[in-house]
Amino acid sequence: MTALPAPTFDDVLAAAARLEGVAHRTPVLTSRTADARSGASVFFKCENFQRMGAFKFRGAYNAIAQFDAAQRAAGVLTYSSGNHAQAIALSARLAGIHATIIMPHDAPAAKVAATKEYGAEVLVYNRYTEDREALGLDLAQARGMTLIPPYDHPHVMAGQGTAVKELIEETGPLDLLFVCLGGGGLLSGSALAAVALSPGCRVIGVEPEAGNDGQQSLARGEIVHIDTPHTLADGAASTHLGVYTFEVIRRLVEQIVTVSDAQLVETMRFFAERMKLVVEPTGCLGAAALFNGAMPVQGRRVGVLVSGGNVDLARFGQFFA
Amino acid sequence: MTALPAPTFDDVLAAAARLEGVAHRTPVLTSRTADARSGASVFFKCENFQRMGAFKFRGAYNAIAQFDAAQRAAGVLTYSSGNHAQAIALSARLAGIHATIIMPHDAPAAKVAATKEYGAEVLVYNRYTEDREALGLDLAQARGMTLIPPYDHPHVMAGQGTAVKELIEETGPLDLLFVCLGGGGLLSGSALAAVALSPGCRVIGVEPEAGNDGQQSLARGEIVHIDTPHTLADGAASTHLGVYTFEVIRRLVEQIVTVSDAQLVETMRFFAERMKLVVEPTGCLGAAALFNGAMPVQGRRVGVLVSGGNVDLARFGQFFA
Repeated sequence: MTALPAPTFDDVLAAAARLEGVAHRTPVLTSRTADARSGASVFFKCENFQRMGAFKFRGAYNAIAQFDAAQRAAGVLTYSSGNHAQAIALSARLAGIHATIIMPHDAPAAKVAATKEYGAEVLVYNRYTEDREALGLDLAQARGMTLIPPYDHPHVMAGQGTAVKELIEETGPLDLLFVCLGGGGLLSGSALAAVALSPGCRVIGVEPEAGNDGQQSLARGEIVHIDTPHTLADGAASTHLGVYTFEVIRRLVEQIVTVSDAQLVETMRFFAERMKLVVEPTGCLGAAALFNGAMPVQGRRVGVLVSGGNVDLARFGQFFA
Repeated sequence: MTALPAPTFDDVLAAAARLEGVAHRTPVLTSRTADARSGASVFFKCENFQRMGAFKFRGAYNAIAQFDAAQRAAGVLTYSSGNHAQAIALSARLAGIHATIIMPHDAPAAKVAATKEYGAEVLVYNRYTEDREALGLDLAQARGMTLIPPYDHPHVMAGQGTAVKELIEETGPLDLLFVCLGGGGLLSGSALAAVALSPGCRVIGVEPEAGNDGQQSLARGEIVHIDTPHTLADGAASTHLGVYTFEVIRRLVEQIVTVSDAQLVETMRFFAERMKLVVEPTGCLGAAALFNGAMPVQGRRVGVLVSGGNVDLARFGQFFA
């Protein structure tokens, strides 16, 4: 794989043009209760309303839309047990190309089914004995397919940045922006958009307490690897930032803060009770940081990325039993 | 109480002017899955995003906004165990007047607390031994307060009609409109707006199967009284239409259809899983009728009123356990 150049704000703009009329321009919602609770003016960018239920569609589609004829003929490959799998599957279907998704043998049946419903081929690997990244690279080489990883890819990052572009176009300048952080695709893309469209906006990444490799990486100035963290925020249970994402994050993100699983549940409850929104645990990271005083926000204009709403309903119900 | 004239579309317009900047202009959402499932182009007017979580705020505020000085000084009175209680309480607080709400002794503690939080006085009655309507009239007379009942009031009906006015302004003409039906405040107001703004639009009322007094009333040409029905749709568990609401409904509503509780739960699941929305059982009536083939809708432009999202989260979770 030839190395691609690091993404810039121009790439976010180009991604937005590709996504026009394909991705939803998701609503920006406000809440009197959120404002009263935080003391800020809060704008929630609701990517739980995005196609397939999460922002991931933006990056996946932006990557596949740039395939040349040979790449299209051979198809796209990825590894993911989460929203990226469905994002690639849907984007490939829209582009009319073949998609192969490598999923762990113990992935929830519903997620496997949803991915297959989009027409993707699902290959299963044993997450305890096999390395999905090596497997993906081998398979891509053997089949001539293009691997689009979940976050560490300039086209994916640029696509994810389009959500914050839309947000700031709608709200005007922001003082702070809270973005959830797993591997950093969303955070890096968001930072590219935020600093370009709202100079001076402080971009804050939010990780689960149990998996603060991003926070450690920023502190040490190098990518820190951790064991797979145990957290409700399954979309942010990554073990390390990417090479591309870390480069943008260290340059443009002011701070990385953490929240606990209990704070995520409390925030899920807030979204459901007060805003009538179903938000998955990972999607609550940004708002949980806001509500728990991770940063002073009094009197500020604050953007919060709500990343997705794909949570098993039976599990969702159990949180509030 | 002097009889007020029956409401007209002009009253809906006047209500909309009063509500401007006070009520939320709630979003109209669409769903590829809903369109695929029904064969129609479906527009959901999401009143679960309304202030206090339901359309009821529109009617309550519109009624109180028309109080004269003497009425304001004496305050407002109502009886309700549901969304109308909170709607009156919030509207009274915004208007700076006193509110007294008569609630059943076995009302959920959370609803009593929410009503008190808005600053209303809550009086409790025994729903098995006392008649809330008589109690309300007596108290109103004794205290000189103005009684604003939950649905059978021209100002309430006109206020409720503003949601469909907004809907059609945004979507353009509709072929059909599905509206949930309890006492008929929302349905009658919606019908006034729909026939004025989208001539030829067929307005369909949707009741719970267990409480089809509206359907019976339309068939017989007179208001039919039934026992309190047992249904998940607690907001539509009324025993009879009102005098004002029936007059409008018999004139402007084409048909009343029913859905089962099982269909309501299935529709609640659809809203949560596919549209990431928390909708209370009553709010699912319209969509349940659409999805279950109550009317032929193939190729039509269909509006669906999603009336509210106030459901106890623990209970919400149990539906999907």
